[in-house]
Amino acid sequence: MNILLIGSTGRLGSAVYTALADRGHKIVTANRTGGDFRADITDPGAVAALYEKVGVLDAVVSAAGVVPYKPIQQMTDDDYSAAYAGKVRSQVELVRQGIDRVSLTGSFTLITGILARTPIPTGTAASLANGAVEAFVRAAAIEIAPQRINAVSPTVFTEALDAYGDYFPGFSSVDLADVAQAYIRSIEGAQTGRIYKLD
Amino acid sequence: MNILLIGSTGRLGSAVYTALADRGHKIVTANRTGGDFRADITDPGAVAALYEKVGVLDAVVSAAGVVPYKPIQQMTDDDYSAAYAGKVRSQVELVRQGIDRVSLTGSFTLITGILARTPIPTGTAASLANGAVEAFVRAAAIEIAPQRINAVSPTVFTEALDAYGDYFPGFSSVDLADVAQAYIRSIEGAQTGRIYKLD
Repeated sequence: MNILLIGSTGRLGSAVYTALADRGHKIVTANRTGGDFRADITDPGAVAALYEKVGVLDAVVSAAGVVPYKPIQQMTDDDYSAAYAGKVRSQVELVRQGIDRVSLTGSFTLITGILARTPIPTGTAASLANGAVEAFVRAAAIEIAPQRINAVSPTVFTEALDAYGDYFPGFSSVDLADVAQAYIRSIEGAQTGRIYKLD
Repeated sequence: MNILLIGSTGRLGSAVYTALADRGHKIVTANRTGGDFRADITDPGAVAALYEKVGVLDAVVSAAGVVPYKPIQQMTDDDYSAAYAGKVRSQVELVRQGIDRVSLTGSFTLITGILARTPIPTGTAASLANGAVEAFVRAAAIEIAPQRINAVSPTVFTEALDAYGDYFPGFSSVDLADVAQAYIRSIEGAQTGRIYKLD
């Protein structure tokens, strides 16, 4: 398949890239820095410009999302708006603008995370963003068929426990390779409107 | 209790007002038009001004949220941003700014809806907004304790079936009086981080 992968240089995106390449897919990458195309997808105009460049796709795959983490007492209106722009609006625009760019049986796979369902302190903006994307995925699925859309919603990555493990006491972790397989399942499978929970 | 009710003149807000008054609560109301105070809570500055006026509260209760409904192919970036501003940011600001305004054992009760979990065509922006608020509620609950926060998440109102019933084929409806009781449960009960689903 012709696949556009957003965020290919990150920890998760690198694992997804490897899994997609192993399956023989033709991948074009877009990142804020590096990759085949430069695009900051928090700018809807950049999403439009990116789609102009890449041609017809069989799958759009997102491994990109940025949200602020702070105690709620320190959060500002701008912090929540940054979460909306950095993980919700960006991925919604990939879908909204991508409907005309993806093949009739193509798919979108977005990234969310466990904070949608299980909170941690400092995570109100992340939870908000993940919850928004997951509900959007369920809703978009019934309108874009036969195109498909799913989300991958992992717990903390095993490979990130050194950096983030203290924020997830007693949580299970998931290997990046297993998260990447959820992307494969979304892209090559037939399901839609699903949230692949990796707890 | 001293209760601030946002959106008291709407179909839902009127029912919540009646239920609160029946329980003997002292209610101050804020609406875009009418009520004790005029406030458009989509403006964070208006939320701040409102809190300055109303004094210390035991509960903040929201029955207000506006989102656009359109087929996804007709949605614009502005439509999704309007949903964020009209139902997510507005209610998040009530909480964020309200933490210092509500008593130590006080509570916030927000409004979401069934589209967070069950989509309908034209509802992608509504689903996004409801999903965002519900995840935020779960996350905020663990940070603001002993203050509490819950959401009420109803299906279509029985009293609104004439207008909206065609959008909810085969769905159960819920009487406004029963939705109002979920607010009472949130306000007078002891639970936090709960989504009261009225399907």
